[in-house]
Amino acid sequence: MSGSKCTRLSGPLVKQLLDSVDSILFDCDGVIWRGDQAIPGASQVINLLKEKGKKVFFVTNNSTKTRKMYADKMTTLGFNVKEDEVFGTAYCSAVYLKTVCKLEGKVYLIGGNALKQELEAVGIQQTGVGPDLITGKQIDWANVPLDPEVKAVLVGFDEHFSYMKLNRALQYLTQPDCLFVGTNTDTRLPLEGGKAVPGTGCLLKAVETAAQRQAHTVGKPNNYMFDCVASQFGIERERCLMVGDRLDTDIKLGSNCGLKTLLTLTGVSTVADADAHQKSGCVEKQGMVPDYYVESIADLLPALQG
Amino acid sequence: MSGSKCTRLSGPLVKQLLDSVDSILFDCDGVIWRGDQAIPGASQVINLLKEKGKKVFFVTNNSTKTRKMYADKMTTLGFNVKEDEVFGTAYCSAVYLKTVCKLEGKVYLIGGNALKQELEAVGIQQTGVGPDLITGKQIDWANVPLDPEVKAVLVGFDEHFSYMKLNRALQYLTQPDCLFVGTNTDTRLPLEGGKAVPGTGCLLKAVETAAQRQAHTVGKPNNYMFDCVASQFGIERERCLMVGDRLDTDIKLGSNCGLKTLLTLTGVSTVADADAHQKSGCVEKQGMVPDYYVESIADLLPALQG
Repeated sequence: MSGSKCTRLSGPLVKQLLDSVDSILFDCDGVIWRGDQAIPGASQVINLLKEKGKKVFFVTNNSTKTRKMYADKMTTLGFNVKEDEVFGTAYCSAVYLKTVCKLEGKVYLIGGNALKQELEAVGIQQTGVGPDLITGKQIDWANVPLDPEVKAVLVGFDEHFSYMKLNRALQYLTQPDCLFVGTNTDTRLPLEGGKAVPGTGCLLKAVETAAQRQAHTVGKPNNYMFDCVASQFGIERERCLMVGDRLDTDIKLGSNCGLKTLLTLTGVSTVADADAHQKSGCVEKQGMVPDYYVESIADLLPALQG
Repeated sequence: MSGSKCTRLSGPLVKQLLDSVDSILFDCDGVIWRGDQAIPGASQVINLLKEKGKKVFFVTNNSTKTRKMYADKMTTLGFNVKEDEVFGTAYCSAVYLKTVCKLEGKVYLIGGNALKQELEAVGIQQTGVGPDLITGKQIDWANVPLDPEVKAVLVGFDEHFSYMKLNRALQYLTQPDCLFVGTNTDTRLPLEGGKAVPGTGCLLKAVETAAQRQAHTVGKPNNYMFDCVASQFGIERERCLMVGDRLDTDIKLGSNCGLKTLLTLTGVSTVADADAHQKSGCVEKQGMVPDYYVESIADLLPALQG
């Protein structure tokens, strides 16, 4: 196999790579689907990989869906997937707080229903979701009522993010024993047509700035997403492939964890981006250069059908 | 006069310093008042300085009050002050957009009533203040209605800050000709008893992270607050003193603009903070070391009464 980085994966190299791995981690948006549309050929690729005995997992920074919601969406789109193969940051954050932090106490949650449900599923209480509005004319911001059982602040995507929530998070985080966890640091959610909306990274930055503390983040490129899969399924790093569309999250996670890495060009990053990182002379940026790239994961199909 | 920095100002040195300046800029909170209480002796100091022919100005990063609101508060507390001696970031941001940016178009405003009023006073239209709430179940965030006349986003303190406002700011700021201005970068508003609430800096950081652009900030330590005073009153830098309680905003502004600087210990920063900056060996931090310090601006009183 080629020792050089960012090699186009085609011809006999595809089978060679697939034979060298037992487990494959896929990012979702921009890799197996875009929005509500499956990438053409993606479901066949996933289903054939599983038929051939590969362990397949889905790791996504999006915190707005539970494992069940992902599995349901995948099933609708024709993927043969089980709930416990899906690792989103809503689920992983709950497991992180439960098993790594061994949290005993409630979570002050900036986030939506999926985070609430995944926390509840592991037996962690939280303060509720939805709007937290200003009531009355004069608010004593520094003395808003706090829940004495709260021992952690968790920040995920929250369309009801507000100054009141930011303020409550600050008041909890000035308690020195209060944990501070973020689902992910993505600054924007890219949408079709070059549009974008603010991502969880913006909310987290606001809370970090107020609290003068840095959150521990669960999502890619932090190792924990891989550790979470590995702890449940016993993955051998040298025989594991990470497939994603973003150099700064997916490929960096793979590099950080010693996995093989494959960039697919159906999402955010380009080969030019990878080349620029390679030529930068910066070790950190070179960690974002994938071993291989494909135009689409459908490019794996011939090797699987053969 | 002593060549060393951070000298305690007392005895004959007080009169020497006052004789060496024609204009004095005072920060407000932590300097002439704390919350709603005047610092004892502060009003006599200000009033005597003016009687003796000194030009006195007030420069504050707080964007929640108009010049008139400040002048009214000061009058109530016994200060002999005119509206046009007050330079808050609500007023200065409006003047900045009008005279420096020569804005022709509307402002998308994240901020409160004082900002709205100061913008209107210089003839700049803005999009309104107050809650911008989620209505309905499914929002098409990337396609929220925008005002085509908006040519600038201004971020100040806003207790109604929300994900919707963050999103609207992002949508405006993806237009390349849209200006981006912040009132100030203070991350926290310190309150009595060691408490604090999130400051404008947190909201600005969220918008900057989403927009992947840096705002031009009007407030201290940016030069503009001084430039704004100087352009209206013809200040001679060498004969001007900046008095404040914060090294990172007040004293740094003074250093940046070549003014004499006086730290007062009735607010945020301490002499130990200044010493640490002095010993850091870092040029930027040494720019936050004041020329002089006093326990309170009341320490100037004997020299003025003599």
